[in-house]
Amino acid sequence: MTKGILITLEGPEGAGKTTILHKILPLLTQAGADILTTREPGGIRIAESIREIILAPENTAIDGKTELLLFAAARRQHLNEKVRPALAAGKIVMIDRFIDSSVAYQGYARGIKVADVEAINHFATDGLLPDLTLYFDVDTAVGLSRVMTGDREVNRLDLETQDMHQKVRAGYQAIAKANPERIVTIDASQAIDQVVAATLATLQTRFPEIFNGDF
Amino acid sequence: MTKGILITLEGPEGAGKTTILHKILPLLTQAGADILTTREPGGIRIAESIREIILAPENTAIDGKTELLLFAAARRQHLNEKVRPALAAGKIVMIDRFIDSSVAYQGYARGIKVADVEAINHFATDGLLPDLTLYFDVDTAVGLSRVMTGDREVNRLDLETQDMHQKVRAGYQAIAKANPERIVTIDASQAIDQVVAATLATLQTRFPEIFNGDF
Repeated sequence: MTKGILITLEGPEGAGKTTILHKILPLLTQAGADILTTREPGGIRIAESIREIILAPENTAIDGKTELLLFAAARRQHLNEKVRPALAAGKIVMIDRFIDSSVAYQGYARGIKVADVEAINHFATDGLLPDLTLYFDVDTAVGLSRVMTGDREVNRLDLETQDMHQKVRAGYQAIAKANPERIVTIDASQAIDQVVAATLATLQTRFPEIFNGDF
Repeated sequence: MTKGILITLEGPEGAGKTTILHKILPLLTQAGADILTTREPGGIRIAESIREIILAPENTAIDGKTELLLFAAARRQHLNEKVRPALAAGKIVMIDRFIDSSVAYQGYARGIKVADVEAINHFATDGLLPDLTLYFDVDTAVGLSRVMTGDREVNRLDLETQDMHQKVRAGYQAIAKANPERIVTIDASQAIDQVVAATLATLQTRFPEIFNGDF
């Protein structure tokens, strides 16, 4: 086995990506899978520094284009230092957010041309695309209420308007429709156990080798 | 007067840009000019934070494409927050490094396609170009010896090989040749007083209004 599998998790704040990942990870590991989980745009020191700049509540002067360039820079370092070596070693790599986040947030929601968002990301990633993207689709009000009642700190992006969150959702849905081979949409408005079950079922269908001990 | 003048200073480390700027600034101000001097990629808080990431000696894992994206992000914020408002107020804005630095360093020296460097910068700047660029051309060995004997700290970029510095110079020379209207080359291997005199002469020829009290 010289080539791993790249799986990305996408969806708005409050879709439950992190919780779901924590629940499915032990099940996959029990099945014998060698998994690296990481997140966008951080996971390595340089990218975490960039993430701090993007998310700092006082940095309200950052506009959409600057944000796009910063996410792309962090994405590239994260790929170079962490993701590509793990894939080369045959691991399953699961990233919390990847290119689709930029297309949904900076493109569809903030109004930067989608073609520009894609071109800059293509430059940053040298054209790497996930083998599978799990898009956790959630009703905007449900997602926001989960964020606001959670125990983590509310950051600048959470403070954007609900209108923005609706544009993000519409963007994700458009991206999913345009990439039916790569992206599987999972209804994340359901109870968490049902979302976990749907996620596992998708992984079993798409990558049976993960569950029969070949990873 | 509703529209200012944008002048950029370009050249390798050791070309003397900062020294020259300090020497010509009082002369221009005495002539009545309203001048804002700033530098790339810093000059504002967010851009300075990005600059710290780029220049940190321990960040050797940053590759050319990441560096390009970070410089572009810092450039955009710098333009939005500082340069464009000053130009709109009718000031003369002099920036130490701008797009040509990215084309010379990340393009010609590090081997990223020049067309990609230009496209990303066009995205970041919304197509803004300087009214005049002063390119301080200096022999590579002279420039490096100035850097190494100066009293400022040596940063990561200074530690690149002399080969890199030669590629940077060749890049700048190619850019100057391709943009004869915008870029004036000044021989910065001369003694500093001669460089200052040549710089002032160029400004007087190009913008006589600066010296007759119209700025």
